[in-house]
Amino acid sequence: MKVVKFGGSSLSSGSQIEKIFDIVISDPTRKAVVVSAPGKRHAEDIKVTDLLIDCAEAYLRDVEADRLVDSILERYLGIARDLQLPLSIMDEIESGLLAALNGDKSNPERYLDAVKATGEDNNAKLIAAYFQYRGVEASYVNPKEAGLFVSDEPGNAQVLPESYHNLHKLRQWPGLIIFPGFFGYSKEGEVLTFSRSGSDITGSILANGMKAEVYENFTDVDAVYSVNPSLVRYPKEIRELTYREMRELSYAGFSVFHEEALIPAFRAGIPVNIKNTNNPSAPGTRIVNERSNTNGPVVGIASDGGFCSIYVSKYLMNREIGFGRRLLQIFEDFGLSYEHIPSGIDDISIILRQNQIVDEQMEADIISRITNELQADEVHIEHDLALVMVVGEGMRHNVGTTARAAKALAEAGVNLEMINQGSSEVSMMFGVMENEADTAVRALYEEFFGEKNQTKTGNSHGDWASV
Amino acid sequence: MKVVKFGGSSLSSGSQIEKIFDIVISDPTRKAVVVSAPGKRHAEDIKVTDLLIDCAEAYLRDVEADRLVDSILERYLGIARDLQLPLSIMDEIESGLLAALNGDKSNPERYLDAVKATGEDNNAKLIAAYFQYRGVEASYVNPKEAGLFVSDEPGNAQVLPESYHNLHKLRQWPGLIIFPGFFGYSKEGEVLTFSRSGSDITGSILANGMKAEVYENFTDVDAVYSVNPSLVRYPKEIRELTYREMRELSYAGFSVFHEEALIPAFRAGIPVNIKNTNNPSAPGTRIVNERSNTNGPVVGIASDGGFCSIYVSKYLMNREIGFGRRLLQIFEDFGLSYEHIPSGIDDISIILRQNQIVDEQMEADIISRITNELQADEVHIEHDLALVMVVGEGMRHNVGTTARAAKALAEAGVNLEMINQGSSEVSMMFGVMENEADTAVRALYEEFFGEKNQTKTGNSHGDWASV
Repeated sequence: MKVVKFGGSSLSSGSQIEKIFDIVISDPTRKAVVVSAPGKRHAEDIKVTDLLIDCAEAYLRDVEADRLVDSILERYLGIARDLQLPLSIMDEIESGLLAALNGDKSNPERYLDAVKATGEDNNAKLIAAYFQYRGVEASYVNPKEAGLFVSDEPGNAQVLPESYHNLHKLRQWPGLIIFPGFFGYSKEGEVLTFSRSGSDITGSILANGMKAEVYENFTDVDAVYSVNPSLVRYPKEIRELTYREMRELSYAGFSVFHEEALIPAFRAGIPVNIKNTNNPSAPGTRIVNERSNTNGPVVGIASDGGFCSIYVSKYLMNREIGFGRRLLQIFEDFGLSYEHIPSGIDDISIILRQNQIVDEQMEADIISRITNELQADEVHIEHDLALVMVVGEGMRHNVGTTARAAKALAEAGVNLEMINQGSSEVSMMFGVMENEADTAVRALYEEFFGEKNQTKTGNSHGDWASV
Repeated sequence: MKVVKFGGSSLSSGSQIEKIFDIVISDPTRKAVVVSAPGKRHAEDIKVTDLLIDCAEAYLRDVEADRLVDSILERYLGIARDLQLPLSIMDEIESGLLAALNGDKSNPERYLDAVKATGEDNNAKLIAAYFQYRGVEASYVNPKEAGLFVSDEPGNAQVLPESYHNLHKLRQWPGLIIFPGFFGYSKEGEVLTFSRSGSDITGSILANGMKAEVYENFTDVDAVYSVNPSLVRYPKEIRELTYREMRELSYAGFSVFHEEALIPAFRAGIPVNIKNTNNPSAPGTRIVNERSNTNGPVVGIASDGGFCSIYVSKYLMNREIGFGRRLLQIFEDFGLSYEHIPSGIDDISIILRQNQIVDEQMEADIISRITNELQADEVHIEHDLALVMVVGEGMRHNVGTTARAAKALAEAGVNLEMINQGSSEVSMMFGVMENEADTAVRALYEEFFGEKNQTKTGNSHGDWASV
């Protein structure tokens, strides 16, 4: 039994929905179908979720938004027409949308969640109607009815453990389940959404609760690539990678799959299969607990910019019990989360995403607190760093991998600001200046995936993954 | 004007003291002479400081210790006889020792400090007498008289800032100053010692207070070597290294100079010159603020064992503000100081000296607290790690150094458990298993100092530095 999830671009038009219909019915083990809101039909299009957010914000400000409401309804109407559905479905969609828009605005965040959730909810109803129209036993299932309960955190809800037990009962549901992604209900019955792109999370929760044999996640690329295709021509596709490898790649810019969404599947040991709605026969990429076919020590190379490093030095710092803890307390007091803490003998650096430091005043305040409270000898900040990750389960204890990576970077003339290796068993991290990150990634790709490593290159479906 | 310090092996016998006499008077700018207690005359000998500790502990237990007292006095008597000094000096030495041994035992730690300090104090009196006997204007100066005040921390006293001002007046002292190392006085007049080998600290404090042009530290090796001479034949001598380089090398096993002792000289920008009492014409090693003559990116390679690594993994750990701080709090609660904190995306390791974890129960308690309080997915400990340091100011932004080091280690078949580079500007750190540390050090030495790098090898005075 499989849980299948389709992203917004796979559901953006009637012809796309015909494709997903064919995909679903081609395999009778596909039991539950989790759907996003209609996405972009072309590059300039606007996602329904974004229209809904604009609409909710207008309502919150008591600004007239009839045209926005119409745009949203027209998206569903267009799909219904394409699919030659009886237009009675539109009454249900319109009343769902208007009920949310005219709902309780006393808590703006909750209101926004309720409006956003209609994007998926109405699409699930529409798609269920289409499946029924095509003569398939299928029904829309509401998350409250199914028992998908979440914490009361608007825009960042977390699944409550009892949900898994509740969802297990869906195994007995007659026929296909069409399930809206992105949201659940609080125990008080309020709609709450997961973080953005949270339909991936719903699918993973369902796969866990229903004990699916696989969670198929359909998007618009054939596979996860070993490197960002905008940097390298014909990058190698990844056939199989572990949860840990996926997690490390996601962190450093691989956006193919929502990182929170891995957790429920990972905890239940259910493989996630990333597949392409537009090329469903391609094998895609499987995310698994342990993988068999290794092809060299490295599976992927990623980078992400926008980091800064706050350097703190103090002679004999390591003799002071509590120094590091007091340093981290200062960051916590400013509400800053940090990524890494490389250290020397008498110095320590805190690597964090620099957009958290909102202005120069805040930066000065942080430096001043560290200088005064810890009596540091020197405190300074370095901006515009990128972290380059080399990821692969095969790297652990592979003595040559570090040397190959460092040599490739040296030959490309890339200065290493930082190396952090040793805690993670599946990655090696290099800190470089942002303006050298692309050079670094290309050099590492060439070293581990270049011509000398393989005869077969990747395919030519060069679009970079986007959900 | 120079401050000169002689270690215990340089003062272990009459013939050694004749050498230091010649050294001191050969340069009229040598103004203050800081002396240790008599050290070992040969490998099986016992240092006077160790005899004093045994003696104090016997007195504290009310055990008879006449033979120990005699052994101590015989050391001074032997020196006085060798130097053909009038033996009246022995009355002063004996009364100083007995006064300390019969002093207030109500605080055992303070009592121990007072007894230990007589080793240096009596030696300074003896040496001052010898200088006078040789017709040189020289006098013993007591640290209380000179104003060397310290914090009330027995066995680990810290200099009080006002001392520097007081000591500056010694510039006007008539003739040579013979100053006992290792101890100062609390404001209440109690004797308190620095940490072990603390005569180096006294010399550094005097150099700072007296604004010396250089602090000469005489020991028993010609220079600081670029690598442990027990691992490599004829290792290269280091002519000049910065305080930062020395600090990193000291940390990882280079014991030539007490690490706390660098601070006062470093703060005042006074060069430290490590020289050999037994070969005073050799240039020795200068420790300076900035160095000129660089000879490749690396100045030294060191390693130190006895570390362990506690690995903690938790999915999406970096989203939890305060995770690292709470983790470090647990270590602080156990009184543990840690050395490094390498981290991956969802994992963090704490590297610490494993002798701090006294038994299996404590280890289990630490793991249990981390597991339960932080709800970690996995916590485990890895024992018997060594940290190998590659040190050199020339490494900063030298793109090839990391690659060379990693390649050398890979070719030697050394597994890298950890790399920590990026906070310190002067070192690169590799974590390896203890049983591979020597192989790693030799491979790195060969890479950076081996035949292909230089035509001239180091000298053949192959004794490893000891203070």
